[in-house]
Amino acid sequence: MNVNPYTIPAPDRALEAVVQRHLDQKTKPPGSLGRLEELALRVALIQQTERPELRNPHLLLFAGDHGLAAEGVSAYPSAVTYQMVQNFIRGGAAANVFCRQNDLTLLVCDVGVIGTFAENTETFVKFKIRPGTRNMRFEPAMTRDECEAALDAGRTLVNGVAYRGCNVVGFGEMGIGNTSSASLLMHRLTGIALEDCVGRGTGLTDAQVAHKLSVLEEVSQRHADCTTPMAVLEAMGGYELAAIVGGILQAAENGMVILIDGFITSAALLVAWSLEPAVLDYCIFTHCSAEQGHHRLLAHLGVQPLLDLGLRLGEGTGCALAYPLLASAVAMLREMATFAEAGVSGKAQD
Amino acid sequence: MNVNPYTIPAPDRALEAVVQRHLDQKTKPPGSLGRLEELALRVALIQQTERPELRNPHLLLFAGDHGLAAEGVSAYPSAVTYQMVQNFIRGGAAANVFCRQNDLTLLVCDVGVIGTFAENTETFVKFKIRPGTRNMRFEPAMTRDECEAALDAGRTLVNGVAYRGCNVVGFGEMGIGNTSSASLLMHRLTGIALEDCVGRGTGLTDAQVAHKLSVLEEVSQRHADCTTPMAVLEAMGGYELAAIVGGILQAAENGMVILIDGFITSAALLVAWSLEPAVLDYCIFTHCSAEQGHHRLLAHLGVQPLLDLGLRLGEGTGCALAYPLLASAVAMLREMATFAEAGVSGKAQD
Repeated sequence: MNVNPYTIPAPDRALEAVVQRHLDQKTKPPGSLGRLEELALRVALIQQTERPELRNPHLLLFAGDHGLAAEGVSAYPSAVTYQMVQNFIRGGAAANVFCRQNDLTLLVCDVGVIGTFAENTETFVKFKIRPGTRNMRFEPAMTRDECEAALDAGRTLVNGVAYRGCNVVGFGEMGIGNTSSASLLMHRLTGIALEDCVGRGTGLTDAQVAHKLSVLEEVSQRHADCTTPMAVLEAMGGYELAAIVGGILQAAENGMVILIDGFITSAALLVAWSLEPAVLDYCIFTHCSAEQGHHRLLAHLGVQPLLDLGLRLGEGTGCALAYPLLASAVAMLREMATFAEAGVSGKAQD
Repeated sequence: MNVNPYTIPAPDRALEAVVQRHLDQKTKPPGSLGRLEELALRVALIQQTERPELRNPHLLLFAGDHGLAAEGVSAYPSAVTYQMVQNFIRGGAAANVFCRQNDLTLLVCDVGVIGTFAENTETFVKFKIRPGTRNMRFEPAMTRDECEAALDAGRTLVNGVAYRGCNVVGFGEMGIGNTSSASLLMHRLTGIALEDCVGRGTGLTDAQVAHKLSVLEEVSQRHADCTTPMAVLEAMGGYELAAIVGGILQAAENGMVILIDGFITSAALLVAWSLEPAVLDYCIFTHCSAEQGHHRLLAHLGVQPLLDLGLRLGEGTGCALAYPLLASAVAMLREMATFAEAGVSGKAQD
């Protein structure tokens, strides 16, 4: 795959003044719905209409294993990735619960899990590239072909749901060891010190974090020559991360609203943004994770998350939890009466 | 009404360890759902069950006018209170939109609006005590009888929805001039300097805020002898504020989950808390308002709001917007699989 065909335009801002005037005519003091007004404006610009609409929201959850997990960088064994995908298929995980609660359709995709699943289902798609990445301590995590196949998996799933009328898509991930990949991508693409990109993941102790950091320093040195976004992704990413990169790029190209989850999804967005800066205009940052690198990454991107609830689970749970805020913002723009319609007096002179 | 019959017990915390163990057995790293786990625990303790359930959620929106509005303390004329209630009845306000979006039933109650409404409807209840409070610059805002009638209105509405199976209730308000009342209640009951309790309300300029502050200083001095919560409420409150105080006390007594909105609702909660400290255990603080006194009031109460979105609209909009987080937290506790159920491996040894 050639990544250059992506030429994602920034949404035309000519509509901004029109939408802002519309927001200011709603029966509320101007600006009094705060960030909900920003959200409504963002969706209006993405969809290029003053009456935006969210249709058939999906959460795409990509799962893959990491060769580096053999180095003891996670509190959980790799087997948990497979077990959790089974849990997603049966509907018992947090992502399932929150998607059901908030009316998002969950679609789980195996791009690199160690272990074999039975059938594709309504909720589950097989797109396995390899059972786990290579151990990046010794070699690049992915070959160029594998990385491109993962990008394609993401693009294919996004186009599949777009074809079914979806115009808002969240991204989530499951993969034991993937905070390590996310930290390395962040470090290399932002220049932020590695120790400020590395955190407790699923719950490491101080000693385990120190071990993780020393392993990641070694990995970073081994791949010191990788500097382009694609080279960095291949060397230190993962299948689920690459799939999210491809999915984000395709969703932006399709003009869809994109929901970004926590630290790992944000690291994938960082790769997509490094390739195509305009993707940022299509993204809603749903929350700030408790994983310590995340707030720094969000600050680097210059963006403000919607929620700050100390979440650190991944799976796209932040997307599913924040989605009702987005739906409310859009409903506000579509359904709220104006001062004129409601016969409500405006502000007295200042 | 005698307020002393309220003897609200703090929820029995004996269940806490059981619920915490249940949360830690869910298929996620312990604590990784952050504040959602706290929310689930809080609801479990209120309902005294490890399988809590939210039923028939309501938003009770009390509306009343303020005699003090004649002193130019608001950016909008008093007529807007009546007009906005009409807007609520017709379904065009932000509170309507967000309640529809998130499946809360909105019930609007006129406890003191200037102007006459036609009929009670599914959405609207007449409980008018007086068309606007007295001007507290010259006399107490309410007589003792009027204040007790407003407390009763709140209690009656809460019992009405409880009778229909509701076990989670949010409180909102509409009343031009009511940030002034809220600021005065906060100042008198917390001891925080008045200037730190006074803000822009619906959008005052710097000069208008200075005028508001000077009026409120005069009011505060006039009622300097009022120190008990009830005396403070009568002298400087409002009908909608008193109704919320009564509603909160009744909801806690009923063992209902209580959603607190922004600055004004929090000031009403402050009165209820001053009367009955245990009410706090029944409350979820849905957001931190952009009104400058609110974060100080939340800090005084020692509570953390769920959302921080720069909202400053009132109407209970924060309750309606945050409700899905609460519903998700409860669904998590009820529906998520445990490690054992899902066959997922636990954490490796630390």
